[in-house]
Amino acid sequence: MSDLRVHNFSISLDGFATGAGQAANAPFGHAGERLHEWMFATRFWHEMVGGQGGSGGADHAFAVLHGPGISAEIMGAGKFGPPGWQDDPDYKGAWGPNPPFHTPVFVLTHRPRPSIEMAGGTTYHFLDASPTEALKVAREAAGDLDVRLGGGASVIRDFLTEGLVDHMHVVQVPILLGRGVRLWDGLESLEDAYHIEAVSTPSGVTHLTFTAKSR
Amino acid sequence: MSDLRVHNFSISLDGFATGAGQAANAPFGHAGERLHEWMFATRFWHEMVGGQGGSGGADHAFAVLHGPGISAEIMGAGKFGPPGWQDDPDYKGAWGPNPPFHTPVFVLTHRPRPSIEMAGGTTYHFLDASPTEALKVAREAAGDLDVRLGGGASVIRDFLTEGLVDHMHVVQVPILLGRGVRLWDGLESLEDAYHIEAVSTPSGVTHLTFTAKSR
Repeated sequence: MSDLRVHNFSISLDGFATGAGQAANAPFGHAGERLHEWMFATRFWHEMVGGQGGSGGADHAFAVLHGPGISAEIMGAGKFGPPGWQDDPDYKGAWGPNPPFHTPVFVLTHRPRPSIEMAGGTTYHFLDASPTEALKVAREAAGDLDVRLGGGASVIRDFLTEGLVDHMHVVQVPILLGRGVRLWDGLESLEDAYHIEAVSTPSGVTHLTFTAKSR
Repeated sequence: MSDLRVHNFSISLDGFATGAGQAANAPFGHAGERLHEWMFATRFWHEMVGGQGGSGGADHAFAVLHGPGISAEIMGAGKFGPPGWQDDPDYKGAWGPNPPFHTPVFVLTHRPRPSIEMAGGTTYHFLDASPTEALKVAREAAGDLDVRLGGGASVIRDFLTEGLVDHMHVVQVPILLGRGVRLWDGLESLEDAYHIEAVSTPSGVTHLTFTAKSR
């Protein structure tokens, strides 16, 4: 069976994956872009946005794993758009006309709508479903390939709680946000189910990888 | 002026420095000894308890910094003893007849009592004082040497909030406790005042050092 994988999911030292005050012009609230600067500096990111250059070290090596072997993504409503997007029937997501997914994307929302086909291979589908149900649908769409779990934090928590995540890459950034949405709440003893590795890199971040013992 | 330093302060991935349910036979609550196994494996620890052996790598190198240059410690009431110790007028602390401090130790409590002289150079003094006041007293006792801030988490938070900590060494252990006392609450933007380094080691822990930019 294919894996469910989390990649490049960045949190602060105090565990926040997004700050407070999320809005259309502030998708990570008061965190701004600080949780993702490590990624913007990599060759992975430079190439994704059509440029050149960028660092080719450990941060890059982790970052590139985001793409290969993935053929569907599941994301929460908060990653698709800012609070209230469900009220706009023509809204097409926060990721532009050519979103960086290039696969089917399953958006979890209690107010589903018809699918939207975007340029570059991304099609948004909208599901009001439990984690187990959503994963079943996404796995069928992915065929033999893996499914990416795109976040946000509360969605990842829900899937971890159900024991559905096979591989998780979390990047801890040395800042303290103080408020926002925490990744780790309610996950006592998660280490029982995962092999965990920690690797700090010269940029100052620490990459944490969780590999399910059941795999 | 001498420094106020925190050493070997261990927390879980989700930021808890102690678990829930602290008691005389469970000083770290449901965390048990899991937050400190990295330290028990070091040569530093083996030698402190009068033995031999132990690892001599990076974990040891960080751990030994606990001692040199220190001539007083400040600790919270919860590090001195389990909940309720204030009701026992003969209580002499949870650290045995020859405590591992070997300096004056200033215990913060709203119910101070007469000082207690122990074997090995440790004398417990009891202070009902603000962080600034307690540090002034401890610095006078330490002379030209530094003061260690021994914890627990809420005491360290109070001193950080007042901008009194010059150096802090936090060890992040890859377990999730889910409940207990958090170190990081209410410390938004702490990184503005500190140079932060992260170093993960082969034992699986990540050493975080905070060096005050003002020093």
